Amino acid sequence: MVDVAKAAGVSLATVSAAVNGSAPVSAALKGRIHKAIRQVGYKTNAIARSLKTGTTSTIGLMVADITNPFFTTTIHAIQELAHRHGYGVMLCCSDEDADKERMHLRLLADRMVDGFIVASAGETPELRALVEGGRTPVVLIDRLVDGLETDAVVIDNVAATRDAVRHLAAAGHRRIGLITGRRTLSTGRERYEGYRQALEEAGIAFEPALVGSARFGADDGYKAAAKLLSLADRPTAIFACNNLSGIGLMRAIHDAGLRCPDDIAVACFDDFDWANVFHPRLTTVAQPTQAIGVQAMLLLLERLKDATARALPPRVVRLKAELRVRDSSVRPAR
Amino acid sequence: MVDVAKAAGVSLATVSAAVNGSAPVSAALKGRIHKAIRQVGYKTNAIARSLKTGTTSTIGLMVADITNPFFTTTIHAIQELAHRHGYGVMLCCSDEDADKERMHLRLLADRMVDGFIVASAGETPELRALVEGGRTPVVLIDRLVDGLETDAVVIDNVAATRDAVRHLAAAGHRRIGLITGRRTLSTGRERYEGYRQALEEAGIAFEPALVGSARFGADDGYKAAAKLLSLADRPTAIFACNNLSGIGLMRAIHDAGLRCPDDIAVACFDDFDWANVFHPRLTTVAQPTQAIGVQAMLLLLERLKDATARALPPRVVRLKAELRVRDSSVRPAR
Repeated sequence: MVDVAKAAGVSLATVSAAVNGSAPVSAALKGRIHKAIRQVGYKTNAIARSLKTGTTSTIGLMVADITNPFFTTTIHAIQELAHRHGYGVMLCCSDEDADKERMHLRLLADRMVDGFIVASAGETPELRALVEGGRTPVVLIDRLVDGLETDAVVIDNVAATRDAVRHLAAAGHRRIGLITGRRTLSTGRERYEGYRQALEEAGIAFEPALVGSARFGADDGYKAAAKLLSLADRPTAIFACNNLSGIGLMRAIHDAGLRCPDDIAVACFDDFDWANVFHPRLTTVAQPTQAIGVQAMLLLLERLKDATARALPPRVVRLKAELRVRDSSVRPAR
Repeated sequence: MVDVAKAAGVSLATVSAAVNGSAPVSAALKGRIHKAIRQVGYKTNAIARSLKTGTTSTIGLMVADITNPFFTTTIHAIQELAHRHGYGVMLCCSDEDADKERMHLRLLADRMVDGFIVASAGETPELRALVEGGRTPVVLIDRLVDGLETDAVVIDNVAATRDAVRHLAAAGHRRIGLITGRRTLSTGRERYEGYRQALEEAGIAFEPALVGSARFGADDGYKAAAKLLSLADRPTAIFACNNLSGIGLMRAIHDAGLRCPDDIAVACFDDFDWANVFHPRLTTVAQPTQAIGVQAMLLLLERLKDATARALPPRVVRLKAELRVRDSSVRPAR
């Protein structure tokens, strides 16, 4: 500030008044001061301000896979709303690795972020300590963590999967395969449960051989799909539990010399920009990715800014996903 | 720290020695202290540390579109390397809006980040002041900004586009359309230049009517493509200057009742996971997105950590892109 005052040829008090609006300053003087600020590069010192308020106006955002379009839309929504409320977003990516997540959580805590939004790669002592410590609000997104009592925004995975598998059964399929996601995650478990419910509802016996285990990745989705497709009595339809395993599934169908939907019907979790451009246009479960981000940030803002909200018990918001039926699940008329 | 010492039943000096490794502490004592730390929630106070060192160990990362897969891989690489070196990443997204970028740059500067990596949405006084101020290192990625002398990592856009259009010409196409990107950006201008060079090289006269103006988005790409496809003498091949306009192009071809590659050959910038899964498998210019992120962070780290590097003149690193020829640009034999 001293440099600014010198450059503008005014007193320190005048600079302070102009910057903080603490006293009236003429437009001409303001102009000179702002020009000087640009020259000198003076900024309100965020560090000093943090020390005074004990807050950093920063939130930590931990996602499992930043290259997955599901997360990017959510990140974007969080970032938009955070900035509108004066919060910076410190981004960390665990790559679905619980150890990496622990490391990042420690770093974010060390940086004293004011709040956390976390799509957890799995329960860890750090995450539990953070939530149970109760000093810094934590909002989980996408995945719940068993026994962790905190705000969360997730979708109704059971219903969404049930709807999609019900759609395959309604098209006449009786041998419906599943490519699971990570069963250690709530999303993986709930989608599996939705599959079981749809089968039961349709009077189709559950066959363990038709369930391929994958971990929400394209390569493991490919492997699980290839195994299902090589069965003597292979499924006539397959549901994949996320977009990446859906991609793996499509690759496996191609490599096995099969055609979709003629030989095998496909539906999968997570819509994306490209799903309706190429052939076959993919039938997907579209999650409200933008709404997840907005809702998570709203819950966090309430905890950060409102003493009444801060006292509320943990809130779990469930949003609905939407089945988008396209070509890949519908056998052409013969 | 006082609370930790009390909870662990040891002296403050012992806690300090255990945390900072400044003196040997027995494993048993360390165990007790770490347990106490978990209970009390003690963290090295980043704010106090920042005040002491004048640095925040944070870099500001400004991208133009976080939902574009091109950027997500780059962001991921930057984030990985930054964390490995103890830097947090504050993420901002301009949505290709120069005003939003200005606002974010001010916020990041106010937070006193130690360095910037910026894919700029366009030249602004804030960006210029930041670079010319010379206090905080700035690395541009993806796009150069005219007259802004600072480190940058970009690809050789002219050569990459020339290669792709040359490939279309070599397949016998003489009427090759272009869907441009934003010509206010270096990427848009350079790719346009590569198109012109390839035509000239192939002895094809340049026709302004075959150039559709778009702004790197799917919707404007669609509109520009629809216009080209409605020409009485429409192009037999089209090159799109990024992945989103390529998607718009594919939609327009579909909606016009045309087939790719039978009626119209297609190639576009930016490879992505899905490009080789569906039909037609897309011919793309694959940018080294991961390498761009790593290289940008390396340049920034050098400026941040090495006084010798800090004194170097601006370095512009050009990386090569790779043409991946698939079905969309190759007419099937008849």
